[in-house]
Amino acid sequence: MDYSQVPTPKRCYADFCLIPVGTGKVSVAQEVAEVQKLLKASGLYYTLHSAGTTVEGSWDEVMKVIGQAHTIVHKTGAVRVQTSMRVGTRTDKAQTADDKVRRVEEILAHDEPSAW
Amino acid sequence: MDYSQVPTPKRCYADFCLIPVGTGKVSVAQEVAEVQKLLKASGLYYTLHSAGTTVEGSWDEVMKVIGQAHTIVHKTGAVRVQTSMRVGTRTDKAQTADDKVRRVEEILAHDEPSAW
Amino acid sequence: MDYSQVPTPKRCYADFCLIPVGTGKVSVAQEVAEVQKLLKASGLYYTLHSAGTTVEGSWDEVMKVIGQAHTIVHKTGAVRVQTSMRVGTRTDKAQTADDKVRRVEEILAHDEPSAW
Amino acid sequence: MDYSQVPTPKRCYADFCLIPVGTGKVSVAQEVAEVQKLLKASGLYYTLHSAGTTVEGSWDEVMKVIGQAHTIVHKTGAVRVQTSMRVGTRTDKAQTADDKVRRVEEILAHDEPSAW
Repeated sequence: MDYSQVPTPKRCYADFCLIPVGTGKVSVAQEVAEVQKLLKASGLYYTLHSAGTTVEGSWDEVMKVIGQAHTIVHKTGAVRVQTSMRVGTRTDKAQTADDKVRRVEEILAHDEPSAW
Repeated sequence: MDYSQVPTPKRCYADFCLIPVGTGKVSVAQEVAEVQKLLKASGLYYTLHSAGTTVEGSWDEVMKVIGQAHTIVHKTGAVRVQTSMRVGTRTDKAQTADDKVRRVEEILAHDEPSAW
Repeated sequence: MDYSQVPTPKRCYADFCLIPVGTGKVSVAQEVAEVQKLLKASGLYYTLHSAGTTVEGSWDEVMKVIGQAHTIVHKTGAVRVQTSMRVGTRTDKAQTADDKVRRVEEILAHDEPSAW
Repeated sequence: MDYSQVPTPKRCYADFCLIPVGTGKVSVAQEVAEVQKLLKASGLYYTLHSAGTTVEGSWDEVMKVIGQAHTIVHKTGAVRVQTSMRVGTRTDKAQTADDKVRRVEEILAHDEPSAW
């Protein structure tokens, strides 16, 4: 098998939380804001939540922008940057982030009261 | 040092994404809905987003409820359950999930247009 | 359903990577060493690797020791501590960390040379 | 700022754990073995441990090979593939996975016995 020809997925979502290490600052809000600007400029669909940011697009686009986020946070002075990431791909359908939450909410809405 | 006496943190947030393994089902929405019911019953503050659920409380409460979530998903038939989790603790102040997002949005709102 | 009576799993493994935030120090080796001492004192089975530590035991024991690790790292001066964790539980058998690696190595050893 | 010109890091490590979802199989050892073959073919430095695989290289190379791993596992029949990943970059020095473990072991070796 010629592994070099294996493509990366056309579509994925990544939920990531990036942490600057060794900066001496407790708040990371400024760095998170810088990354949001980068994401906005990328044209990819993304949402910020309290424990990270979810971004959707092709594997290559998504990973490129997260790599650029590391570079940008290094430029703010952080010698080390550490990211925790969850990435998902699926081949059956293109389900958006919003679809996923809606699906769970529908199940909960139709649930019998007695089950609570 | 008597390590057995070291306490766990009084307050933490955990953002987790739980995956049933080996079920033969592609959708995990039903399992996620079951876990939301468990979280509701726990009385802890939590929010569902497209890539996981964030829950806040004492370390012991938060970890207990995530462990219970594993048990509940096992009961739906999953032989293996795998969770990816980010947990944060801080000693300086009690910052909520909502505070964190608001802080980033404030920075972005006050940003100079030329910086985009 | 009385959710308060749902037990946590009797057995799990957790692979975690703990990061002190806002310390002004780039190296985290000292903090990692402190956590290794705590783990040793816990009596749980654990292994350190370059990207984290894997610990095995009951859900409650494992989560307690990781919570204690946060407390210990806070005591070294870190105002914020952030952990990225993978946790797995299974109901079919008690597979150790060593079993898992061995199983993959066996598959690779018996693989046809042509497949490489 | 022209964000499109921001480079990705020249060097990183990624520790990842990939899970096929919806396959009806409990063991993932076969899929992990396939991914090990892909990693071997990539020429990148990698190590398998019980809770994941650590791979080192440039950001683009590392993310490409993990994306290819998703594609390969999809080809084995998994409709969804989910990865949990930790990624680290640093600008001060090129520290290998082996260096990191050795550093912690040195600290523990020189530790006073009374501290245990």
